[in-house]
Amino acid sequence: MTLIKEPNLLLIPGPTPVPECIMKIINSQPMAHRSVEFSQILTETTKDLQWLGSTSNDAFILTGSGTSAMEASIVNFINPHDKVICLVMGVFGERLAQIAQAIASNITIIKSEPGCGIEASELESVLKQDLNYKAVLITHNETSTGVTLKLKEIAAICQKYNVLTIVDAITSFAAIDIPIDEWGLDVVITGSQKALMLPPGLAMIFVSAKAWTAYDLNQNAKFYLDLNKYRKSMANNTTPFTPNVNLIAGLNESLKIIKRTGKEAVFNRHKVLKTLVRKFAQKFNFDLLVTDESFASNSVTSFKAPKQLSVNELRASLKEQYKILIADGQNELKGKIFRVGHMGYIFERDILMLENALVNIMGINPHK
Amino acid sequence: MTLIKEPNLLLIPGPTPVPECIMKIINSQPMAHRSVEFSQILTETTKDLQWLGSTSNDAFILTGSGTSAMEASIVNFINPHDKVICLVMGVFGERLAQIAQAIASNITIIKSEPGCGIEASELESVLKQDLNYKAVLITHNETSTGVTLKLKEIAAICQKYNVLTIVDAITSFAAIDIPIDEWGLDVVITGSQKALMLPPGLAMIFVSAKAWTAYDLNQNAKFYLDLNKYRKSMANNTTPFTPNVNLIAGLNESLKIIKRTGKEAVFNRHKVLKTLVRKFAQKFNFDLLVTDESFASNSVTSFKAPKQLSVNELRASLKEQYKILIADGQNELKGKIFRVGHMGYIFERDILMLENALVNIMGINPHK
Repeated sequence: MTLIKEPNLLLIPGPTPVPECIMKIINSQPMAHRSVEFSQILTETTKDLQWLGSTSNDAFILTGSGTSAMEASIVNFINPHDKVICLVMGVFGERLAQIAQAIASNITIIKSEPGCGIEASELESVLKQDLNYKAVLITHNETSTGVTLKLKEIAAICQKYNVLTIVDAITSFAAIDIPIDEWGLDVVITGSQKALMLPPGLAMIFVSAKAWTAYDLNQNAKFYLDLNKYRKSMANNTTPFTPNVNLIAGLNESLKIIKRTGKEAVFNRHKVLKTLVRKFAQKFNFDLLVTDESFASNSVTSFKAPKQLSVNELRASLKEQYKILIADGQNELKGKIFRVGHMGYIFERDILMLENALVNIMGINPHK
Repeated sequence: MTLIKEPNLLLIPGPTPVPECIMKIINSQPMAHRSVEFSQILTETTKDLQWLGSTSNDAFILTGSGTSAMEASIVNFINPHDKVICLVMGVFGERLAQIAQAIASNITIIKSEPGCGIEASELESVLKQDLNYKAVLITHNETSTGVTLKLKEIAAICQKYNVLTIVDAITSFAAIDIPIDEWGLDVVITGSQKALMLPPGLAMIFVSAKAWTAYDLNQNAKFYLDLNKYRKSMANNTTPFTPNVNLIAGLNESLKIIKRTGKEAVFNRHKVLKTLVRKFAQKFNFDLLVTDESFASNSVTSFKAPKQLSVNELRASLKEQYKILIADGQNELKGKIFRVGHMGYIFERDILMLENALVNIMGINPHK
């Protein structure tokens, strides 16, 4: 029953393609999670995560979706009566706000229009009116629109007002440089199935000394996501609960490849891909959702729906004819935009492929 | 650098060996989690889980360690002021009690000596003294000692007193028959890396209509483990958060193999393995921790430390000479027992291998 078929190419904003050398590692029999061999891998992987995030903050690996780390980034540090600001630019900012609202009652939301960013000055104007805020929740890269915030500037404002900087970097970490210590980020989270080039199943979290001070005052009931359990276990090079050993071994390999490639080269490739995608959009008169270049994401680009075809038809044709998968808009942007993920194991030639496939499907004359 | 080396054989109580046909499936490029193809796999897998648990209760797949489902089984159904009984026979019963204590203040613990079980009559004597209990938390198979409770009898008592029956079946599901509907179990959880023959990373949870009634009254802050999110998403054949798509595809295959093999045959193999292990223990004068046969687990057997060798020496020799991995005792049983896992993809010949390896290492004359 085996036929020669082209495999799917995932140009969605995660999961992303996994390199064969990582697949090989994941495809091993599970290791005993309490063995010396696994402890070594865990320790090495944790150090490499810290290297990639340019940080000496604690780093922990959770077995869970990215959302488990989103919840961990709040439930460990925010008390029910804390005042919190949440920067919301789309679906994932909303999710962060929803988690915060499930835990604390006093959430101030700063919201942008779809495709727009939020400037550090907007945050400052809220912070300076009330000096009792405890934390700012930040979606670094909003996957539902393709907006990246200017995290360095925002973090500087957070430091100025002495609030915790809690960052969802799920779709930016390993795609965009995030020097955690230099920028003074207190909590940073990411996930396996994005620029780290792994299948979904792991979430990572970095925790600063200042965040641990907030932890010490934390009153929320928590167990699986209680980061102190991870800290205690990591002191013995282990995890509190049976982790996804296969994916952690894969993450170890992924970080090694990034190390060998050089992280600057990896960040630069993502920047180049963004530029290429936006260039061909302009060339063929596609409207982009994010018009302010300074907010355009290096890992996801949203195109407005063209006139000739619906987003559904476009996605179906790309999938049927070329096995290329792109994403629809979410919630109120469903059918109004399509999203191209270009993070992780994606290269210039993949963008050329998408460009030509879109040209064919839309009947565009490329020489016009 | 590749040498011919015998691979590790995991005779620990999880992770367990993964069949090659499942490894092949897991070793595919990740699927888009919002695709029709993945929805079909998710729906089929959920139905097969219900088939294996002989239930029409809702079934959900969480991306997380077994402990994530342990917490989900409590945080969704138990309110801070609820009175709860927890049956504790070892480390995992204690963990269940700890989670319960993080959420509710009124926990009654019924505790057995290490290696001993708890009879339904002991539970009844507590329940009948106070008719305000809301739930009983039950570790079906206590992995730290190798004790299996008589779940049918215990569930009957729970029903008699109209309390929720919440069951940790992480190391019994798919090894021991658990007819959820027939026994009236309200919440049952399990994990991927045990008798379901997968790497760690998934946790499964079954929820009865009665449990949903308790959910409706639930006040705890929760997000990642909020089961109503899973229920809403499953109504659209999807998951609320990016799931471990590779492991869910692997679980689909695992359940298919169990289906083709016949679940009775699978349960029976585990029973046979238990009998074989206990037989050779008796033959060579090993003392077993669980002396009451009616509580002896079909999936894990604990041996008391022999006089000739320490548990550490024994484990090291087995690993060095034969690449066979067995587990030490945990906490106060560390160094006092060793534990043999015989669940999932383990067969009679693996037990013969262990028997002979132990005979060699301990210098036993098998013909004496």
